[in-house]
Amino acid sequence: MTAYWLEHAWLGSGRLADHVLVTVDGDRLASVEPDIVAPPASATRLRGFTIPGLANCHSHAFHRALRGRTQEGRGTFWTWRDQMYAVAERLDPDSYYALARATYAEMAATGITCVGEFHYLHHDPAGHRYDDHNVMGRALIAAARDAGLRIALLDTCYLAAGIDRPAEGVQRRFSDGDIERWAQRVDDLRESYASDVVVGAAIHSVRAVPRDGIAAVARWAHTREAPLHFHLSEQLAENDGCEAAYGMSPTRLLFEAGALGPRSSAVHATHLSDADVALLGGSQTYACFCPTTERDLADGVGRSRDLQEAGARLSLGSDSHAVIDMFEEMRAVELDERLTSSTRGHWSTEELLTAATGIGHASLGFANAGTITPGAFADLVTLDASSPRTAGVRKAAELAVFAASAADVTHVVSGGRAIDSSRVGRELAKAIGPLWEDA
Amino acid sequence: MTAYWLEHAWLGSGRLADHVLVTVDGDRLASVEPDIVAPPASATRLRGFTIPGLANCHSHAFHRALRGRTQEGRGTFWTWRDQMYAVAERLDPDSYYALARATYAEMAATGITCVGEFHYLHHDPAGHRYDDHNVMGRALIAAARDAGLRIALLDTCYLAAGIDRPAEGVQRRFSDGDIERWAQRVDDLRESYASDVVVGAAIHSVRAVPRDGIAAVARWAHTREAPLHFHLSEQLAENDGCEAAYGMSPTRLLFEAGALGPRSSAVHATHLSDADVALLGGSQTYACFCPTTERDLADGVGRSRDLQEAGARLSLGSDSHAVIDMFEEMRAVELDERLTSSTRGHWSTEELLTAATGIGHASLGFANAGTITPGAFADLVTLDASSPRTAGVRKAAELAVFAASAADVTHVVSGGRAIDSSRVGRELAKAIGPLWEDA
Repeated sequence: MTAYWLEHAWLGSGRLADHVLVTVDGDRLASVEPDIVAPPASATRLRGFTIPGLANCHSHAFHRALRGRTQEGRGTFWTWRDQMYAVAERLDPDSYYALARATYAEMAATGITCVGEFHYLHHDPAGHRYDDHNVMGRALIAAARDAGLRIALLDTCYLAAGIDRPAEGVQRRFSDGDIERWAQRVDDLRESYASDVVVGAAIHSVRAVPRDGIAAVARWAHTREAPLHFHLSEQLAENDGCEAAYGMSPTRLLFEAGALGPRSSAVHATHLSDADVALLGGSQTYACFCPTTERDLADGVGRSRDLQEAGARLSLGSDSHAVIDMFEEMRAVELDERLTSSTRGHWSTEELLTAATGIGHASLGFANAGTITPGAFADLVTLDASSPRTAGVRKAAELAVFAASAADVTHVVSGGRAIDSSRVGRELAKAIGPLWEDA
Repeated sequence: MTAYWLEHAWLGSGRLADHVLVTVDGDRLASVEPDIVAPPASATRLRGFTIPGLANCHSHAFHRALRGRTQEGRGTFWTWRDQMYAVAERLDPDSYYALARATYAEMAATGITCVGEFHYLHHDPAGHRYDDHNVMGRALIAAARDAGLRIALLDTCYLAAGIDRPAEGVQRRFSDGDIERWAQRVDDLRESYASDVVVGAAIHSVRAVPRDGIAAVARWAHTREAPLHFHLSEQLAENDGCEAAYGMSPTRLLFEAGALGPRSSAVHATHLSDADVALLGGSQTYACFCPTTERDLADGVGRSRDLQEAGARLSLGSDSHAVIDMFEEMRAVELDERLTSSTRGHWSTEELLTAATGIGHASLGFANAGTITPGAFADLVTLDASSPRTAGVRKAAELAVFAASAADVTHVVSGGRAIDSSRVGRELAKAIGPLWEDA
């Protein structure tokens, strides 16, 4: 068994400990003993602050190719989407795998040990199924395994360009044509994988799936006890369109279709009424905030604290990967709420760290992860406590949430495996360059 | 003469170049030649993207001790200020020097080559002058020199706790009692220093200096052609108090007292009316935004683009040093404006990079800095273009503004001197620990 000795650790649920001897058996923690002053020589010393693995609950891996390339001119979420679609048009199973593997490697380097991949790029450029109709999903799962992360593949149902508008252009790569074909394809995928992979469902949005389709995907997920994720009210235009078509908010539509609940995650949840907040909270739906993307796409600031008070549980994602830094995501929830409220202290550091660890993993269908306890997935993320950013900060949670950056992660163990991050930059450059013909 | 060879460079004013051979004579650039494919063996190769030195235009160095220590409980700007005052009470000339030197060393490590220090901690804990009445200011200047930065010491006039309220408690350390004593002390300080130091003036705020005092400090600065900085409308309470006392906004009060103008910097400038924006723009006052602090202190989002369009010029500062990362400050101006406007593209990357370099240095009284041109201060900041964060981004300005973090700075030359950042963390821990008795 491999052994690690943690100088200082946040074990989860507010438990701090020093000099923790941890043993790993396979992908799980076998023992966790604090106050071991003289660890065995065979134990790897992890100096600094160690926290559990981070869960990145909302990812579109291929958006990583857009980083630093969409910042010219003015525009909105919708003009950004045009650029994103241009990349989506160019990908094939090989380039999709290479880009996802490099992106997941960046995640692993920053302490992310599990990713929720909201996957909708299913078919070939003409919109036809590949010979293996799940080749794109399998590429993502292989990419995550090869990069050393667990994955919840949230296979996304996407049928329409908008309410009563058929899929068009690159969206034909997203659409299975109808719910039955989507469900059959995803069931095929589920059958192929063991316990280290979760295959769940996603409803792209109330724009992209009609009302009866939403209900059908929700039934599919509930029957299989699978996670169910959906984009929700990221833009006011979605709310307006939904009101016009259905006479109700997107949240209400999803609620009436049976899509809310304790295995469901509402991604963004930015523009909500009090009634929406009550529905999400009452159903114990996760609210997956993606603050750095919501800044980048000019989405606005959602009501994170109100959601939590109502009963929803916060999780976090880096979404478009304009930034991959869960430390920035954690603090951004609090900081952006400060900007809109003019008060501080909406979230405790403990709550934010729990959102990024235990709660996040649970929202992806991995219940026994995100804590440093025997039996949990063996994820250990060590932060340098003496970098220019972190030096002088004394408490582990404050250091992680309010001082550290992704660059302060010095050592990552993910599912028992030590992550080697030495080639991440080269891998990213090699995967991204050809998509823009500047390799 | 020392020579550097820059693989890729942003020279300032939108000029990009590759394979740039640069020679340094003393603290200045002697020559800048692009397209030198075969540089002399003696030239230090700087791989990646090199940009000019960054200017941090608003700093309270001692606030660095608060990082990660003020995040408990709720509260506002004002409750944060109580914690900040608690640190201010404990400092003496030696600990002030040690903390400032470590903070400036963190800045230098992240590519900052000039700091504007808004210095108000002048006197001993009883409010009496030290034997050398400028010992605290000299400590800051020595700290900057020892850390390798240029400094504009913005010696701050602070006379009152609020409009018609005398200085109290630790504020007695800030106050010179009257304007004459402030001016005489600052003139003494100015006489001691050569061209690598700017001694300028600051008006703490319209709360801390009465109307006639504001006019007197402004006259002092104009007579000496010195930079003049002031906190402006960071909090709505300041606007309300000023309206109640003077029947006008803080901006209008400063304008009428002669404090606006092309050597003046309005720090924060968060809560402004259209008329305020017009006064700041028409007078060509710099607008110094400090976005990471404004997030941290729940200040709100200022009207950066409106100010620029009106004629004000954007500069940037890390202020309370909750974060020291000018790359994050640059993008935060754009991103936070996106959050409040729901549109993207308010600022071009070129504009943001110019704000953090050439404009910033000029606002601190260093005109020939922030560009890579012969005769300018020899500041070179090299960014890793193949880190997990930056890999795959191809354009220099986009890389600096939208992908890089402080941790991606690999090499810094400041005023001709190569910065060694290997001891920054240790220096910070040693300076901060004793202030909290956890050394």
